[in-house]
Amino acid sequence: MSAPGQDRILLAVNMFHPQRWYELLSGKREVVLEPEGSNDPSISYAVVWKQKPNLLAGLPNLKVIFSVGAGVDHIIEDKTIPTGIPVVRVVAEDLTRHMVEFVVWRVLDHHRQGRQYREQQRQRAWHDLTQRPAEDVSVGIMGFGHLGRAAARALLALGFQVNGWSRSAREMEGVSTFSGEAGLVPFLNATDILVVLLPLTPATTGIIDYTLLKQLRKRNALGGAVLINGGRGRLQKEADILRALDDGTLKEASLDVFEIEPLPKTSPLWNHPRVFITPHVAATSDPDHLVPVMLKQMEAYERGEELENLIDRTAGY
Amino acid sequence: MSAPGQDRILLAVNMFHPQRWYELLSGKREVVLEPEGSNDPSISYAVVWKQKPNLLAGLPNLKVIFSVGAGVDHIIEDKTIPTGIPVVRVVAEDLTRHMVEFVVWRVLDHHRQGRQYREQQRQRAWHDLTQRPAEDVSVGIMGFGHLGRAAARALLALGFQVNGWSRSAREMEGVSTFSGEAGLVPFLNATDILVVLLPLTPATTGIIDYTLLKQLRKRNALGGAVLINGGRGRLQKEADILRALDDGTLKEASLDVFEIEPLPKTSPLWNHPRVFITPHVAATSDPDHLVPVMLKQMEAYERGEELENLIDRTAGY
Repeated sequence: MSAPGQDRILLAVNMFHPQRWYELLSGKREVVLEPEGSNDPSISYAVVWKQKPNLLAGLPNLKVIFSVGAGVDHIIEDKTIPTGIPVVRVVAEDLTRHMVEFVVWRVLDHHRQGRQYREQQRQRAWHDLTQRPAEDVSVGIMGFGHLGRAAARALLALGFQVNGWSRSAREMEGVSTFSGEAGLVPFLNATDILVVLLPLTPATTGIIDYTLLKQLRKRNALGGAVLINGGRGRLQKEADILRALDDGTLKEASLDVFEIEPLPKTSPLWNHPRVFITPHVAATSDPDHLVPVMLKQMEAYERGEELENLIDRTAGY
Repeated sequence: MSAPGQDRILLAVNMFHPQRWYELLSGKREVVLEPEGSNDPSISYAVVWKQKPNLLAGLPNLKVIFSVGAGVDHIIEDKTIPTGIPVVRVVAEDLTRHMVEFVVWRVLDHHRQGRQYREQQRQRAWHDLTQRPAEDVSVGIMGFGHLGRAAARALLALGFQVNGWSRSAREMEGVSTFSGEAGLVPFLNATDILVVLLPLTPATTGIIDYTLLKQLRKRNALGGAVLINGGRGRLQKEADILRALDDGTLKEASLDVFEIEPLPKTSPLWNHPRVFITPHVAATSDPDHLVPVMLKQMEAYERGEELENLIDRTAGY
């Protein structure tokens, strides 16, 4: 326990309903809740998610920023964060599990033809559809870091073929891995179900466009390719996804993230019969799991140990 | 290859669209397609699924029956099959994988609140629902044989708590196992999502009734218990399932099997908003995987080796 009035934590996670975060952190340390705390010299740590610009610019004694969640674009894009202050990406096994659940859930719902069976149920139709085994279906994961590899392991265990694509080469047993620009088309050409878990960087913004979707393997036995985006909304061009759905390039899509969030009421994605929408819930950050992780990291930092999981703000991830 | 006119195979899998089975078997051996072949002395093997009574009674030289599919009730209940003829249950890794896919798919769709998110999508509502982590949810598998254990492994890998119940005690690492009548209520009391993979025997017929469902753990945080039946339809009492759904004992159900199949058009299950129906497709038998398995077993039998995976017609499984 730190002495009162020093090493305070600024909590700025308003998108996540901050109450539980506040309860858990303040049980152990002094916490200042945004919008309080600007320029407060007693604040040493900031716990943030999609913070407002300038929030972190005026804290004279800020030592470490903890960003809760897998995405880091709100850190990279906030040019008001003083350079030199380390930013920790708070990842817990819990968050990984949530994302793996989401990926496996959506892959299986497309693979096992959930949409078609729900439609048949509405029609009271008893009719078995041809079902390919998982080993005949390849899932391609774009973004092959911690989350992508965990998802790959779960899909391999269920018998799927798995391809992985990443910026720089990363091998994994049982997975066909591809990397860089040269590897992208071969990766897409070998992929039936595309799972997007990329970070949002200038290089990946808008990468999921019509040209890319057109490269996915399209096999008649599967009725077309499938897109699952559990990464970031601005990776995708939604007009291109709609075009690909409507001309048969894509059979179906599961989208958890969108160019603009919340997804505007006027978006034609909402009532597209072959699109499944979730409101950015693939892997939410659970304070009951993440707060203990952060408190340990603060203690380790105060003992002079090195911080782990630092974000490389120059590289953008 | 056997000499022509002897060791023929009688093929009687009409429920499964027999064409592909016929193509694959007849590439290697002589095949007689039902309804041909009754009393044919050249028939040594029968490959069957839900055969008609008396089909197997009049074959003077029948040596082995191959039953394709996990369920055996059509063998046990057909009292016209001469005793003494061995019946092989043809199981392949493929069939196990299909059932594991089905179980994981349905568990995740209930766990991740697929129904609620589909409903919100219809309303164009952007609203995140509280999501419990898998480690807070226990899936109880009734019927803890080959399929049940494979499903347990997949669910454990995703982080779920898993309980297993079987007639006689079967241990498994990481799983809380229960057995016999004495173990049933404790098993149910510790289960949020019940997965039924039992064989149909006189002891299990109608076992999924209101009294049993009432024993499931009902936690407000999860909104009630869930039933998934991938076993046999006559394990369940559908009137009791409807009653349990309507009084809140059950939150949702996924049913692949029914007391009468095809499910009658008049059944109120079809349009129940919290029931998901598939037409007995959880694990269909794929001839491309099973025919090579059977051909190998026939060759091994002809070399004098012992048959594997024999059905115990006295015990009923």
